[in-house]
Amino acid sequence: MKLLQDRIVRDGKVLPGNIIKVDGFLNHRVDINLLKALADEFYAVFAEDKPTLILTIEASGIALATVVAERFGVPLLFAKKAKSDNIEGGLYKSEIFSFTYKKTVNLIVSAEWLGENERVLVIDDFLANGEALRGVIDIAHQANAEVVGVGIAIEKGFQPGGQKLRDAGYKLHSLAIIDKADENGITFREE
Amino acid sequence: MKLLQDRIVRDGKVLPGNIIKVDGFLNHRVDINLLKALADEFYAVFAEDKPTLILTIEASGIALATVVAERFGVPLLFAKKAKSDNIEGGLYKSEIFSFTYKKTVNLIVSAEWLGENERVLVIDDFLANGEALRGVIDIAHQANAEVVGVGIAIEKGFQPGGQKLRDAGYKLHSLAIIDKADENGITFREE
Repeated sequence: MKLLQDRIVRDGKVLPGNIIKVDGFLNHRVDINLLKALADEFYAVFAEDKPTLILTIEASGIALATVVAERFGVPLLFAKKAKSDNIEGGLYKSEIFSFTYKKTVNLIVSAEWLGENERVLVIDDFLANGEALRGVIDIAHQANAEVVGVGIAIEKGFQPGGQKLRDAGYKLHSLAIIDKADENGITFREE
Repeated sequence: MKLLQDRIVRDGKVLPGNIIKVDGFLNHRVDINLLKALADEFYAVFAEDKPTLILTIEASGIALATVVAERFGVPLLFAKKAKSDNIEGGLYKSEIFSFTYKKTVNLIVSAEWLGENERVLVIDDFLANGEALRGVIDIAHQANAEVVGVGIAIEKGFQPGGQKLRDAGYKLHSLAIIDKADENGITFREE
């Protein structure tokens, strides 16, 4: 999506360690008009899949997923990151490895709010190793819900998460795929 | 706001320890149409204060704050909860006590994204002891930004956070104020 690519080039920064910093418009300070344009694009791609629920992961996915839920006219559900091992009953949970925090985290979703008839569209701001997505997809499967698609704003194409999801047969759509990012600039995958 | 009060009565639950559980429509599974109605109400109250930025706290405030930012046509900024004491430079931070997790947490905001000319409307889903709000207001003051208002979905009127903010002179508007919640039901403050 050219609008997003242009914004990444204009306002993003590449930090050592292949970190793409987009906190001025996507995941700290958030440009709502940009999110609305991204949501329109997700709608064009996933409307045919008739999602009944948008599922994301706290915290940085929530703003984008909210605007997407509004665009589709369906509820939003966000998986929480459990702060302890002391998890009450009535929950689906999935253990993931957080590369950001270098530790294991439990994603949790209340069983009450994820029914087996839901058609789930998973939305997140970033896809790199894909651990968080693996976790929420696992949770959707525990609930016997159907994952009808996965929509990502920025995919790091040089990390394995996207390929794993495509190989597993998911309808994955990333609005910008970065194949290379270093001190010389950012290379996007051709659409 | 009657719409929100009715929804709390219909779908909320009171748990032991004065916990008001509204995770079916506000802070886990989220009813976007309800959020839009809440945002309209905040717009009616705070449009005259001409906010240029909506500020909230991750994670459960983000969905509501996103819809409010969209309603006002201004950006959203969410304070992050620092996962360690190892905080890099260029940040405003404020230490708060989390009653949920019974420990001290640092709220952080990148100095780059909170300028001194901002007119900040703080939005959050809940107000109880007011620690998180005290933290983001402190951060806004560090940035020399002006806090033009504080908008809350549900205030626990039997806890001190709301009164402290009103005593300090802030324009605080809570859409539903719960004065009592126990096994006999929920009592709202008269509007």
